[in-house]
Amino acid sequence: MKILITGGAGFIGSHLCDALLIENHKIVVVDNLILGRIENISHLIGLESFQFIEEDILNFDKLQGIFKEHSFDMVYHLAANSDIQKGGKDPEVDYNLTFNTTFNILLCMKEFDVKKLFFASTSAIYGETLENLTEDFGPLQPVSNYGAGKLASEAFISAFSATYNIQTWITRFPNVVGERFTHGVIFDFINKLKANPHELIVLGNGEQNKPYLYVKDLIEGILYVCNTAQDRLNVYNLGSYTRTKVKEIALMVIEEMGLKATIKYTGGDRGWVGDVPEFKYDLSKINQLGWEAKINSNDSVRIAIQKALGK
Amino acid sequence: MKILITGGAGFIGSHLCDALLIENHKIVVVDNLILGRIENISHLIGLESFQFIEEDILNFDKLQGIFKEHSFDMVYHLAANSDIQKGGKDPEVDYNLTFNTTFNILLCMKEFDVKKLFFASTSAIYGETLENLTEDFGPLQPVSNYGAGKLASEAFISAFSATYNIQTWITRFPNVVGERFTHGVIFDFINKLKANPHELIVLGNGEQNKPYLYVKDLIEGILYVCNTAQDRLNVYNLGSYTRTKVKEIALMVIEEMGLKATIKYTGGDRGWVGDVPEFKYDLSKINQLGWEAKINSNDSVRIAIQKALGK
Repeated sequence: MKILITGGAGFIGSHLCDALLIENHKIVVVDNLILGRIENISHLIGLESFQFIEEDILNFDKLQGIFKEHSFDMVYHLAANSDIQKGGKDPEVDYNLTFNTTFNILLCMKEFDVKKLFFASTSAIYGETLENLTEDFGPLQPVSNYGAGKLASEAFISAFSATYNIQTWITRFPNVVGERFTHGVIFDFINKLKANPHELIVLGNGEQNKPYLYVKDLIEGILYVCNTAQDRLNVYNLGSYTRTKVKEIALMVIEEMGLKATIKYTGGDRGWVGDVPEFKYDLSKINQLGWEAKINSNDSVRIAIQKALGK
Repeated sequence: MKILITGGAGFIGSHLCDALLIENHKIVVVDNLILGRIENISHLIGLESFQFIEEDILNFDKLQGIFKEHSFDMVYHLAANSDIQKGGKDPEVDYNLTFNTTFNILLCMKEFDVKKLFFASTSAIYGETLENLTEDFGPLQPVSNYGAGKLASEAFISAFSATYNIQTWITRFPNVVGERFTHGVIFDFINKLKANPHELIVLGNGEQNKPYLYVKDLIEGILYVCNTAQDRLNVYNLGSYTRTKVKEIALMVIEEMGLKATIKYTGGDRGWVGDVPEFKYDLSKINQLGWEAKINSNDSVRIAIQKALGK
């Protein structure tokens, strides 16, 4: 297939490029390199079946031009804001980067008759709840603009899928970690400890407890779902049942850096407004499809720390 | 309170103006008069506690000016596309009129620190399902761009409510009928029969079966929910348990017009792409709050036909 990957120079997008090239597809990446980085895909540039276009998909005329030039069989839409805290301070960040990117992609898919879409969604659409999160969970009440932008995207994707007959795969990601990542708690801790190796200030009480998934497991899960599920609209949670507490991450980072830093908690049950302190996926749907994560949450975190430290 | 009503010159908005003025609030209506009509509020113009501003809330600078000039205590946001079929042909209709209107309102509420919001949502967010629709129903997979625009609105409203502490009331409307309405099946049948009094062509097989609510019941329900429910985010289905089939509506319209037209069905289970042929609300949440509709679905349809015919 000829595939467009939006955000293909980003952390997850670039791993997806690697995997889809192995499956012998022709890949076109569109990325504005604001959140994505050319280093993530520099090993692919020059390959015959790979093309990189530096462009912002919010520029609709340019995006139309790209769809017109290429006859895509499928779009993997990953471009989005990746900094939830930033989106809380300025709601236009997720309105534009997380939602309007999706709407522009949908308009072009309709116009140029592209009939297959993968969309990278998130646990954040479920909002804050301690209940077991099946794909059919309701009510959906996101507490962050990031979660809202992803749910708004899912809403229009659902309508376009039904109205214009676009086969769609949506997987809802947990926290994803591994090579090439640039955001999140592991990264923050490493940076803080580089600045002050004696003390680590942790936002919240350290009890926030979430599943972390290793990026290579995630990519395998995405491809498994897209290759296996064959409804018109296929929605799957993607993750593992294991979880890791923020205080465990803090200890692992200190240990891997070979430090003896003391940990100081700012208190409260969450790191920032919009943070969801705890959630638990029900994964029976994807397990029944035949996929499960190979690496548990703690090991994923450990690998990610080691990779971030260049080990 | 000083209240902004968006879409206040529309079918439902203008009835809401009438009711809120009786409750002694000061009302400012903003409406671009594209879907709304000045006749709907002409009886209010000149009242000291009523102000009408002809403006498009998609014009963000103008909207900011209105929020700056008035210190609103609450916003009732009703402005939206009201033609679901039109939105299926051009997705930008609901993107702009149904979703972006909401996002602009939210940005202004954040900027000017308005802490109370009512939002007019819809059964269309639930998509197409024969299950009993509680407010917690999932998955939410709208099949029309109108439903998507409303669900996208609810998503950002939920995030803004949590992030910026805005108390919010969302009621999800069924089909609403009565004085001043301008769209929908009753209206279509009357217009068709005026053009040809001998034959009525009905889209679909006539078996589409939905609850119709009389607009005055709806308005009473909205005010009851806003005055009674006191969570931060209050979400309620609003409707009645009774339903009316399209073929029953056809017979009532013919009868009320005093005609002997034959009815011809185009066939298929729905009127158009994006139409949801059947749905059934669970209303236990609003009933337990202490409200129920006074007029059943068939009587609501009958009254609406009579009002539309000037009886």
